[in-house]
Amino acid sequence: MTPTAAVPQPRATYRRLSVEERRAQLLLAALGLFAHRAPDEVSLDDVAVAAGVSRPLVYRYFPGGRQQLYEAALGSAADELKLCFTEPPEGPPTERVARVLDRYLRFVDEHDTGFSALLRGGSVVETSRTTTIVDGVRRAAADEILRHLGRIGGAGEGEQPAGPRLRMMVRSWIAAVEAASLIWLDDGKRPAAAELRGWLVDHLIALLAATAATDPETASVVSDLLALETAGGPAGQLAERVIPVVAEAAHLLPAAAASD
Amino acid sequence: MTPTAAVPQPRATYRRLSVEERRAQLLLAALGLFAHRAPDEVSLDDVAVAAGVSRPLVYRYFPGGRQQLYEAALGSAADELKLCFTEPPEGPPTERVARVLDRYLRFVDEHDTGFSALLRGGSVVETSRTTTIVDGVRRAAADEILRHLGRIGGAGEGEQPAGPRLRMMVRSWIAAVEAASLIWLDDGKRPAAAELRGWLVDHLIALLAATAATDPETASVVSDLLALETAGGPAGQLAERVIPVVAEAAHLLPAAAASD
Repeated sequence: MTPTAAVPQPRATYRRLSVEERRAQLLLAALGLFAHRAPDEVSLDDVAVAAGVSRPLVYRYFPGGRQQLYEAALGSAADELKLCFTEPPEGPPTERVARVLDRYLRFVDEHDTGFSALLRGGSVVETSRTTTIVDGVRRAAADEILRHLGRIGGAGEGEQPAGPRLRMMVRSWIAAVEAASLIWLDDGKRPAAAELRGWLVDHLIALLAATAATDPETASVVSDLLALETAGGPAGQLAERVIPVVAEAAHLLPAAAASD
Repeated sequence: MTPTAAVPQPRATYRRLSVEERRAQLLLAALGLFAHRAPDEVSLDDVAVAAGVSRPLVYRYFPGGRQQLYEAALGSAADELKLCFTEPPEGPPTERVARVLDRYLRFVDEHDTGFSALLRGGSVVETSRTTTIVDGVRRAAADEILRHLGRIGGAGEGEQPAGPRLRMMVRSWIAAVEAASLIWLDDGKRPAAAELRGWLVDHLIALLAATAATDPETASVVSDLLALETAGGPAGQLAERVIPVVAEAAHLLPAAAASD
């Protein structure tokens, strides 16, 4: 090291930021505030203070005020969340879903108040635009799960679109995951995220098995999935533990009824 | 019949209504409009025309305008929906849940556009008050299902409150039912309501079985429920059909892995 290395350099924050950099800086500050407060409790002043800039500067970038800033922050959070869903189609499917859920629950944990406020609705910043952003995230989640089931949500080349029953099952499981994560936040983030993730994976396996029982498409999907699972993994463990429960229903089986 | 019976009687609509009757009449007209249009597309003029009264009269009863009228109509619809959930605790539990779902899906069918607009959010009439009303309906639904499982949602005398795992499972199933009914409306009310109801009952049975596999409280609840089911009923039929699916997972069972 030469002595010149000790000469103080201008701090990064004093550097003149490009329009894109400044916008990103303000969004980041807004995201931090919206994550932990209800949107109605975040003012442009708060964003200016958090970003270390003047209020007029915030307004110059977001002339629509809090509403515009909120929508931009929400769009940015939605993109981040969609990235959580991305998982290579390799390895046992239950483990892939577990990894996606782990990332999702980490996101929920990090954005707790804002996540809760957004999904509970009734906020003044909620508009058809924010609803569209949230629906886009739900659709992305459903498409990603369907992809791991070897199906696609819509029409696509060389891929098989999911039938209505399987599609509805996946989308309603996603709604259940969303509801479970809101309850989890209400319950002070109990149980531990890993335990909740285990429950949610079990729910999906159970729904797939029940749907496979009467829907031929799902039966074929489940058959393909089971071939990729590992012995003693989540599917095997659930199957082992559910056998005594199903056995308790033996007296209800139509065969048993017929032989009465 | 005497000739005097033919003398025209004053028509009921010309009778001076009491304050309560008038309010009920306006609410009924509003409910009819809100059921089949997005709330933003219903004006006080529409309500006045539908009720056959003057616009100032509507304003006299609902000085807060459309917002107040919407909240009153929503409260009235919420009470109606809660009544749908009420089911005597007798007979096979799966049949009780099926009857509740049939009434619920009839309500969704009759209030399609309003139901969809309300739950999708982003409407100008949505406030923390409307959110509270909707949450109250969800809570009532969860409490009613828990009651049929022999548990209660909160603390009560002589009854056993549900543990966190069972409570979360029931509440997330209710969110899944809500999501499924929105998808059902989007899909032009296909499949037939009775078929959708069958899927949703199967979902609940599957979630109960999967939760019973690892949660002792749910295992005890399921054991009690199975004793009330009839041979060849929904639980037996699902159990019979799910056995081949579980059998396909035989190679995953920890016992099989150990003997490899």
